[in-house]
Amino acid sequence: MQKKRLLSGMQPTGGGRLHLGNYEGALKPWTKLQDSYEMFCFVADWHAYTTLNSAPPDIAAASREVVLDYLSAGLDPEKCAIFRQSQVPQHAELAVLLGMLTPVSWLERVPTYKEKREFVSEGGGDSGPSYGLLGYPVLQTADIIVYRAHVVPVGKDQAPHLEISREIARRFNHLVGEEVFPIPDALISEATGVLPGLDADESGQLRKMSKSYGNCIYLTDKPDEVVTRLKTAFTTPTKIRKDDPGVPEGCAVCQLRKLYDPEGFQPQWDECRSGARGCVQSKRETAEVLNAMLEPIRERRALYESDPAELDRLLKRGAEKAAAVAEETLQQVRRALRL
Amino acid sequence: MQKKRLLSGMQPTGGGRLHLGNYEGALKPWTKLQDSYEMFCFVADWHAYTTLNSAPPDIAAASREVVLDYLSAGLDPEKCAIFRQSQVPQHAELAVLLGMLTPVSWLERVPTYKEKREFVSEGGGDSGPSYGLLGYPVLQTADIIVYRAHVVPVGKDQAPHLEISREIARRFNHLVGEEVFPIPDALISEATGVLPGLDADESGQLRKMSKSYGNCIYLTDKPDEVVTRLKTAFTTPTKIRKDDPGVPEGCAVCQLRKLYDPEGFQPQWDECRSGARGCVQSKRETAEVLNAMLEPIRERRALYESDPAELDRLLKRGAEKAAAVAEETLQQVRRALRL
Repeated sequence: MQKKRLLSGMQPTGGGRLHLGNYEGALKPWTKLQDSYEMFCFVADWHAYTTLNSAPPDIAAASREVVLDYLSAGLDPEKCAIFRQSQVPQHAELAVLLGMLTPVSWLERVPTYKEKREFVSEGGGDSGPSYGLLGYPVLQTADIIVYRAHVVPVGKDQAPHLEISREIARRFNHLVGEEVFPIPDALISEATGVLPGLDADESGQLRKMSKSYGNCIYLTDKPDEVVTRLKTAFTTPTKIRKDDPGVPEGCAVCQLRKLYDPEGFQPQWDECRSGARGCVQSKRETAEVLNAMLEPIRERRALYESDPAELDRLLKRGAEKAAAVAEETLQQVRRALRL
Repeated sequence: MQKKRLLSGMQPTGGGRLHLGNYEGALKPWTKLQDSYEMFCFVADWHAYTTLNSAPPDIAAASREVVLDYLSAGLDPEKCAIFRQSQVPQHAELAVLLGMLTPVSWLERVPTYKEKREFVSEGGGDSGPSYGLLGYPVLQTADIIVYRAHVVPVGKDQAPHLEISREIARRFNHLVGEEVFPIPDALISEATGVLPGLDADESGQLRKMSKSYGNCIYLTDKPDEVVTRLKTAFTTPTKIRKDDPGVPEGCAVCQLRKLYDPEGFQPQWDECRSGARGCVQSKRETAEVLNAMLEPIRERRALYESDPAELDRLLKRGAEKAAAVAEETLQQVRRALRL
């Protein structure tokens, strides 16, 4: 039986380095999907410009970092096409055509547009949101359906975006009177909820790991960086000395230990609680656990980092594989549109 | 000295047949520009979908008709690149990128959007205007600046669209800190005002020749069609019999005769006025004048119509020539955007 097609991707924002939260929420689940699906995995580099109102950052370099993260997480270029959106211009051609049949009113209702629009306005944005920001879901729809993808792994907060993609695909099929596009289904990630970061908010609650909070462990962190980051991580605020009792449920270090050492975390938790073990030891041990988990990821990254030419070839092959499917789709689209 | 670059084009609307008004207002002036400029002349076939809310018409066939009209009007494929927009996907890639830096507020202010938006709403448009309609000026800007064109021949009513293209080009250059794009100048057509059609409005005033009024002479009309069209053309309503006095200034037939026979029209006008000549004779003579003018246009069309394979080759060559320049531009754009 023919495998179903799956499309996944990420923006190369903020320099492109991915953290453990990205890994748990996306990359790791993706690596489990690459055997069951015909998978297309792209870096959404055009999307990084959704609002371009100052000199652009180095998107090429950031995109390369994301690709390295994909590979180091275990995505296999033999199994899935890995490429940059900007190297498959069919995404743009389809986006332009889909824009013709997407009502502005649908786009204005998308919750993330409303939020971002306010953000842009507050940020002293002289002229408000860009046409590209408004049309983000149109380009995203093109990204998906240009491969006639059947499923898209998404986080729950991305559900509205996929809903509009489904609507646009349906509308296209309806207008041309032909099922050119399968209606893509959301594959809600089975990830174990939100990964906690290394800090807490003002009320002492752990926050999710997020680049914007600066509370991350990055896939690119070297072993001693992980040790250093954990040294300043949030633990039980009232556990000043080793024998003060801790609350592992509210401690970033204990949470990460539990997540990454489900077999072995119990003694740490018990002794933290009783005061038999101090934060210094917990941090050191958790760093070891994390470093052990990160080691194969680092090894794969080192392999590709040491051979930039091979990385280029790999991206070229990925783009060619993607473009071949995309061009096939566009031929169907042009014919259906009598173009 | 290097020739300046010029971009011109037309939509393949309503089946694509062009009439004398299009010829006088655009095609004829264009043929005079092809020696002085490096000229790119395209069929804006994507633009024909600006609002796609029912099964699409045969845009491919309509585009071919427009190309035949270009050629029959005297555009020379050796001098200017003739091609279809949809065959140069760089237009779409640049449009997507330009959309990122174009504020929605600029687009909402474009007068033609306001008009068309109302039209769409009135027309029972379920969900209002499309994203493509709103972004029409963005795609049009890409059409122009993807060739780094210096001038664009425009009618006066298109001036606002070129103004926004100039703004978008300026904004791109400003953001990347580099003069990637020349700011395109409008070349206002020297055409002799508006060409009158074959009918008059309710108050007896001649109307401009327009497809929507059904008052046209088409470049594809055969000689006897021209004769037939002129037979029902609007003349002086009070000139019932041959010897009734006519008013040539208000007569469609006399006006066309004057325009296309500036040396020889005077006797017709004088005798129409005095009642010495009737409308039947005026119509026959004017048809002859028009047919003589249309004859070389028909001959060129027949030449290309008889050889569809050559037309295909010509369009392919045109698209290749255009794509080579467009790709050069996109390389500059990608580099400037650090993509």
